[in-house]
Amino acid sequence: MSPDARIVATYRLRVAEAEVEERALALATEQSVEMPLTAIGDARVLSEIVARVEQVRPAGDAFEADIGIAPATTGPEAGQLMNMLFGNCSLQPEVELVRVAFPGDYAKGFGGPRFGIAGWREATGAQGRPLTCTALKPQGSSIEHLAHLAHTFALAGLDVIKDDHGLANQAFTPFAERVPAVQRAVDAANRASGGRTIYAPTFSGGPGSLARQAAIARDCGVRAALVSPMLVGIPAFVELVATLGVPVLAHPALGGAARIAPAVLFGQLFRLFGADATIFPNHGGRFSYSRATCLGIADAARAPWASIAPALPVPAGGMSVGRVAEMRADYGTDCMLLIGGGLLSAGSALLERSREFVKAVGA
Amino acid sequence: MSPDARIVATYRLRVAEAEVEERALALATEQSVEMPLTAIGDARVLSEIVARVEQVRPAGDAFEADIGIAPATTGPEAGQLMNMLFGNCSLQPEVELVRVAFPGDYAKGFGGPRFGIAGWREATGAQGRPLTCTALKPQGSSIEHLAHLAHTFALAGLDVIKDDHGLANQAFTPFAERVPAVQRAVDAANRASGGRTIYAPTFSGGPGSLARQAAIARDCGVRAALVSPMLVGIPAFVELVATLGVPVLAHPALGGAARIAPAVLFGQLFRLFGADATIFPNHGGRFSYSRATCLGIADAARAPWASIAPALPVPAGGMSVGRVAEMRADYGTDCMLLIGGGLLSAGSALLERSREFVKAVGA
Repeated sequence: MSPDARIVATYRLRVAEAEVEERALALATEQSVEMPLTAIGDARVLSEIVARVEQVRPAGDAFEADIGIAPATTGPEAGQLMNMLFGNCSLQPEVELVRVAFPGDYAKGFGGPRFGIAGWREATGAQGRPLTCTALKPQGSSIEHLAHLAHTFALAGLDVIKDDHGLANQAFTPFAERVPAVQRAVDAANRASGGRTIYAPTFSGGPGSLARQAAIARDCGVRAALVSPMLVGIPAFVELVATLGVPVLAHPALGGAARIAPAVLFGQLFRLFGADATIFPNHGGRFSYSRATCLGIADAARAPWASIAPALPVPAGGMSVGRVAEMRADYGTDCMLLIGGGLLSAGSALLERSREFVKAVGA
Repeated sequence: MSPDARIVATYRLRVAEAEVEERALALATEQSVEMPLTAIGDARVLSEIVARVEQVRPAGDAFEADIGIAPATTGPEAGQLMNMLFGNCSLQPEVELVRVAFPGDYAKGFGGPRFGIAGWREATGAQGRPLTCTALKPQGSSIEHLAHLAHTFALAGLDVIKDDHGLANQAFTPFAERVPAVQRAVDAANRASGGRTIYAPTFSGGPGSLARQAAIARDCGVRAALVSPMLVGIPAFVELVATLGVPVLAHPALGGAARIAPAVLFGQLFRLFGADATIFPNHGGRFSYSRATCLGIADAARAPWASIAPALPVPAGGMSVGRVAEMRADYGTDCMLLIGGGLLSAGSALLERSREFVKAVGA
């Protein structure tokens, strides 16, 4: 990588035209050295460390500024990359991060998904079609109930059964008891059906908890994981995925509040940091993302990117079996379709509705 | 705590009046069980786990909804508390978290600041006046330059010298070399002056890095710490402050993007999670927070709260010596005044301007 190559972050600035050049320069300063440039005496800092305004241009009723950030200021450390991209300017409501382009082999320092789309297909045997996914919920249910749900979903042939991301490590269903029980239920159903369903429990809490949960999961043969990067913290997410040894589904909880474009955060950055699949609220469900926003996330998750494996986009958030055809048309074959409440609301017909979902996706 | 006592989270909802009751109910469901209530057969889950709409009322041109969240759904785990408060609804732009009230002894499970305001005063000897604080920057400077700045600031009698939060663990000034060198410079200045300046280096990165940095800091006698909870992740922050054994300054980087009221996030929650002091962008500097917002943060950091110690509010972000009197009038005695670039821009007169700052605050 040329020493002069920069990470180019594009920000949308809602400011008056007369101020935009000055505002872009202030942003470049804020995001890199956070002090007056006139007070910096070191020429090397000015040329190699201070972020540069590469271009400013009108964009609709606002402006876009390309800011060139020196890769040396982030190193391959996820928290510091987030800081350089959106640390202090997260406190400036007129600033939004809309795109990021990384130079040459910058991404190699992170590694991206360990398994990627191919890894999910290998783990589940699902080929030539989207993967199917559902969720165990609600929190507060007994372990027996959750295991029963998992058994039913696995019998129906779902590819991936994830915990609701709110199934953390609460006293009513602690990870150490819940996860082995659910994994045993899935294993039993697989033996009965000849299927290859995998279970992705929720990993949560501080570093100590995450390490204990990883050990428990390994011991009972868990073959996938669900993690919310913004809840556990991005650097903790990066360290966790490097050691888990199973494909990881990223959940967007607490991530939507940021004025970071969803395609950048949930598509590009979560992938860079190691997510093998990325869940997002599909349009027309319980959330208000537009179809274009959702397709943008899917693009960012799958687009060719140096040596970084593609991640599976996982549209979710109030989906139903009736929307499978439309979601296939939107996202193609390389995606994972997640229906949670839409299956659970079938009550005693849970097995049948789950089979309908599997059949609709396989068709 | 009564089994029925709830965490009451107040959300601002920008929706039409005809929809507000339904929207509040959907929010309570989304934040707790994330599935249709009609599909929940377990009466205990419905009564003890599902969040409740306590009240909905008009508030200006929008509405406020009080949602009662069951403490059992969070346990004393910071990430899961953030999830229950603002996990999925972070993805709903019409929802803003504006206040939180915790029941009885809920806060005890977290512990709050280990040192609090009294701890900062004990560590520095500063009594009966605000504490003074400055920052080492810019990133990219040599270790010798940073140590020289620290020596000068300590000679001038500053109470706390913190790293710029962007001084992470970059290759150009790795923590393992930078922090012992700066601590030595501060110690030497203290010996020369008889002062008690303390140095707060930036802790950053994943759990492994944080643990290594904590060991290095202990070994070289560091007596304070700077951490950005949203960059390292809140659960990692909680685990770190429980083991560091020194007062912790929280930095707001990456936290301002959230539609969580600054008083809630930087005042109340960072304090609950263990921050002994909380930095925020003061009004009239490089950021656009209003005076009322800033005073609200200071109130939340210091207000009496069960057994939870008060934290020092730290107004910052483009302050200058000329504003000391006004900041004292705004924030009173129990605060820490942080001037970074405003001192560094003095160039060769750094020692003199730093002394002016110390004198202005001591007056």
